[in-house]
Amino acid sequence: MFQRVAIIGLGLIGGSIGLALHKAKAAQQIAGYDLAKGVSNQARRIGAIDQPYSALADAVRGADLVILATPVGAMRFLLQEIAVSLSPGAVVTDVASTKVQVISWAEEFLPASVAFVGGHPMTGKELSGVQAADATLFQGRIYCLTPTSRTHSVAITRVSALIEALGARVRFLEPGEHDGQVAGVSHLPFIASIAMMNTVGEGAAWSDASMLAANGFRDITRLAAGNPEMYRDICLTNSDSITRWLNEYIVTLSGLRDRIAAHDRSLDETFASAQQMRLAWQALYNFPDEQ
Amino acid sequence: MFQRVAIIGLGLIGGSIGLALHKAKAAQQIAGYDLAKGVSNQARRIGAIDQPYSALADAVRGADLVILATPVGAMRFLLQEIAVSLSPGAVVTDVASTKVQVISWAEEFLPASVAFVGGHPMTGKELSGVQAADATLFQGRIYCLTPTSRTHSVAITRVSALIEALGARVRFLEPGEHDGQVAGVSHLPFIASIAMMNTVGEGAAWSDASMLAANGFRDITRLAAGNPEMYRDICLTNSDSITRWLNEYIVTLSGLRDRIAAHDRSLDETFASAQQMRLAWQALYNFPDEQ
Repeated sequence: MFQRVAIIGLGLIGGSIGLALHKAKAAQQIAGYDLAKGVSNQARRIGAIDQPYSALADAVRGADLVILATPVGAMRFLLQEIAVSLSPGAVVTDVASTKVQVISWAEEFLPASVAFVGGHPMTGKELSGVQAADATLFQGRIYCLTPTSRTHSVAITRVSALIEALGARVRFLEPGEHDGQVAGVSHLPFIASIAMMNTVGEGAAWSDASMLAANGFRDITRLAAGNPEMYRDICLTNSDSITRWLNEYIVTLSGLRDRIAAHDRSLDETFASAQQMRLAWQALYNFPDEQ
Repeated sequence: MFQRVAIIGLGLIGGSIGLALHKAKAAQQIAGYDLAKGVSNQARRIGAIDQPYSALADAVRGADLVILATPVGAMRFLLQEIAVSLSPGAVVTDVASTKVQVISWAEEFLPASVAFVGGHPMTGKELSGVQAADATLFQGRIYCLTPTSRTHSVAITRVSALIEALGARVRFLEPGEHDGQVAGVSHLPFIASIAMMNTVGEGAAWSDASMLAANGFRDITRLAAGNPEMYRDICLTNSDSITRWLNEYIVTLSGLRDRIAAHDRSLDETFASAQQMRLAWQALYNFPDEQ
């Protein structure tokens, strides 16, 4: 299906794409590059790529599909760097969790001879790095594509084929719409989780209270264990949408605080509404690892 | 060890106490009562109790240990009801997640011939009800006891023996201290989770955005699936502490919002501080079901 695929950034996502492409026999050759020393060799050992490169230009040269699988913070530099080495006709896509900013960089730096479409697979794991890579990571998951009026149709058809090979389902969204929705379901949650950990963890009694923390605290603070630089870069590239959702969240919390302070006996109705929405969502999406 | 234990309320906690006491051969007879029809028979079938009762007075009569394992909202009524049926010398304890209010009710309603001490096992499951009961639920977990200057020492020694039989570890706390700490590590998290579900779920694009929600959203909203009446009763009986923690949380979130709106590049330092606290806590408490 693809002659030569180049995967730039061999973490959980990049590594899993390589494994899944191999499993689906969808690429004749998979080239790989990672900034961190030794990672591309490790990726070859586990079968995620065929050919590791120590120079970015060599990795992308001759590729008909280039997948940028780094954190969003590296995208601007990457797009600038690869621009001169891409082969005419190449299709380029990325997996970053914010799209408006990445697309504007792609339009700014990539030559007219290559076609770019932004992408974002809706999957993940608590574990990161190529050692956590998993050929089934995308199975049944949503994979967003965010074409604009300037996107070449070849990019859309080729990357859709990639997504199908990964076992995921394509969902088309306008880039701004994507960033707004993902800010609510993905970025607001990690900020809320971080704020929870910092609020409670900086409390005067934390060393005692930490012994009373159990499963509920574990669930709500799990995202706080994520990569700080990646989270920062998401905030920097999706500032407006995240700020808007944070304002909404603070309004909701302030309303609950006032009602709790006033001993409002009808709080259970508001709690029941959240319970119903959560159960409906869970039933519909039925995550395989739901406890 | 105990002649006759009465467990009032046969949900996850009450049922699991019965199973664990049987497993430890720590009670000659376990009596059980539940308001919901059929539950006490089900508890007997799974081996959580020996003798189901349809009248509260009959269940507690003759018991040397009475365990009130209902939601906190039922405690006031229960303590009033059982007062006249308790045998002199009986020890009474509860498992509610707020202690100051329950203790004041116990002092108000229980006769001087019985000894009360408040308790709170720091465990739980997403599933509830006697069908989720598990003899190992308390294994290695912290179990708070909150004696006051008025608590009989016999209550402390007997309930400590119960906790040991359950495989849990006793932790003594002053009731107000308990309620303040638990408000941070347990009550604030469920309110934050509910607020998250309501904020995002009531957004205009929820039907689309819900398809993009993945593991992070799942984790942060898991607590929102909990019992609304139980949550309300916790809020009603621990209003001051919860309000105080909510104020702190809103201050933290507002600070982050301002910095995100200002494209603050040092956000990763704040995120790293949360990450370090989360990893340190996780390493120390190492939940068996940590994913």
